Amino acid sequence: MGERVTMADVARVAGVSAATVSYVISGKRPVAPATRVAVEAAIDELGFAVNTAARTLRTGRSSLVALIVPNIANPFFAQLAAALQEELRGLGMHVVVCNTWARRDEERALLAEAVQQRFAGVVVTPFRLPAGELEAVAAAGVPVVVSADVPFGRVDHVAPEARTATRRALEHVTGRQRRRIAMIAGPRDATGGDPRLELLRSLALQYGAAVPRELVVRGEHTREAGASGFAELMTRPYRPDAVFCGNDVIAVGALDKARELGVDVPGEVALIGHDDASFASLVRPQLTTIRYPADEVGRKAARLLLERFNGREVHKTVRVQAHFVVRASA
Amino acid sequence: MGERVTMADVARVAGVSAATVSYVISGKRPVAPATRVAVEAAIDELGFAVNTAARTLRTGRSSLVALIVPNIANPFFAQLAAALQEELRGLGMHVVVCNTWARRDEERALLAEAVQQRFAGVVVTPFRLPAGELEAVAAAGVPVVVSADVPFGRVDHVAPEARTATRRALEHVTGRQRRRIAMIAGPRDATGGDPRLELLRSLALQYGAAVPRELVVRGEHTREAGASGFAELMTRPYRPDAVFCGNDVIAVGALDKARELGVDVPGEVALIGHDDASFASLVRPQLTTIRYPADEVGRKAARLLLERFNGREVHKTVRVQAHFVVRASA
Repeated sequence: MGERVTMADVARVAGVSAATVSYVISGKRPVAPATRVAVEAAIDELGFAVNTAARTLRTGRSSLVALIVPNIANPFFAQLAAALQEELRGLGMHVVVCNTWARRDEERALLAEAVQQRFAGVVVTPFRLPAGELEAVAAAGVPVVVSADVPFGRVDHVAPEARTATRRALEHVTGRQRRRIAMIAGPRDATGGDPRLELLRSLALQYGAAVPRELVVRGEHTREAGASGFAELMTRPYRPDAVFCGNDVIAVGALDKARELGVDVPGEVALIGHDDASFASLVRPQLTTIRYPADEVGRKAARLLLERFNGREVHKTVRVQAHFVVRASA
Repeated sequence: MGERVTMADVARVAGVSAATVSYVISGKRPVAPATRVAVEAAIDELGFAVNTAARTLRTGRSSLVALIVPNIANPFFAQLAAALQEELRGLGMHVVVCNTWARRDEERALLAEAVQQRFAGVVVTPFRLPAGELEAVAAAGVPVVVSADVPFGRVDHVAPEARTATRRALEHVTGRQRRRIAMIAGPRDATGGDPRLELLRSLALQYGAAVPRELVVRGEHTREAGASGFAELMTRPYRPDAVFCGNDVIAVGALDKARELGVDVPGEVALIGHDDASFASLVRPQLTTIRYPADEVGRKAARLLLERFNGREVHKTVRVQAHFVVRASA
């Protein structure tokens, strides 16, 4: 399918230089409208499939794909990186992992680097970045895949399908007569809000439970925030008997604090994490969690990038199924 | 000190173009010997300090520093990355973390990328790479800092000072009447050998203990290798009563296996890790380990890079003190 058609063939049919064809495809330099129409007609006629991976090699675009994440110390992202790397290796591409500490200025600076260095692509879990800025990166010719619960602008998107898993978690918890459900959630100023909290809330009522406002505490996605969030919850007059955490890093911090305070998990308080990061099975009690498989996220992100390299122009959302994993903490 | 002397001044004195001065400094293009001598004489005469950070900005060299490591899932490296990032942020530089899985081809490819992309610097924990290849990267104008127990060629080097800590560990273990000491070490084909094993062996005799050949098992620096190494040791007729591990990732795998086999740690077998990676205090029993502070390693590596940016040309080794940390596993 057009794999044997080269840019030179397109140039010949359109009556322009190969460089002009390249400018039309990449959008890197302005091209007169009439010329653009001629080139596009030639591309259609010949069935020329733009192979960005090959173009990358020709044009000196980097073979690096950046994975930009809020916290590289979260093993979820290490696993995602490994899967991404595995999928892209065959193409001679390499993954570099960039840490933003969930800071907007770092997110912004690293994306700017990716554009300036002509990276082959970016996979990003944005945290405080306005969605429009990701669209700008994509418009600058660097394919972008967002890995997040909610979309960040019109770019490719890998997202969890967590409704069923969250139902299972609520069934599990309420089946053990727990009704006072708390959440240690992310910060209020995260660009995407807190979809995990919203999902939990919207489903809890169906199980005769509630996540009242006074049982939602907020902080960064860190172990420290998990510890202080848990301590705060334990001071509430309406004390929770089940605590959901925004991710497993938070849950591990909550577990630290429970041990320190002598609160029995799961006897007094059930604790449920999110992600199933590698240490979820390391801690004691082992963490019950809503598993979001990082390796599958990495593989799907890689495939979205590949499709872009091969010329797809319309943005696309791909879902990855989450699962409720029962261990010892709930 | 020469900070006001520019490359143009050097060029004027040497009677060459600024570009030629730049080639002499960077080594990026060949320069006739006589010209090189003239430029070097002018540099000496004027006291011109090559400010690589400034040059970076002028020449479009990247603001990225690559941290190339065998396993990003090892939290030791996440912590190192964070410290490196913190130190370099003020210079407007960013850290990207690259994972080699301890594979020589990946190490090689990522270093090639760092050169080709004109990265500002590289911090690397090599595993299977011949030392000469790091010197080649440095010669290509990219400052290299090796973080490893032994030097890898004549490049900057951050290394542990672990003799005292290893003595303490041996005192601790032999003080509890343990004499049959095993080690789950790294693979035989690691370029740097296994300095941690060698150090342990060389000191053990002074404590009336030994690390006999049949109690050394080898594998990758992974949790899986830790598990299978521990299982193997438990089948030995001369069964160890203390097991040292090449790092904490290995130790966590050993702990998994001990639990599976019903071997009491530390009752039957004392277990000692290496590094004090973040999960050392997460597992139960908490890991007794030889702490090698990743954050200090990251800071020292950053400083070595900065000195290079400011013109230091002679390679340098900096030591970071390791400490024996007693928790529950030994």
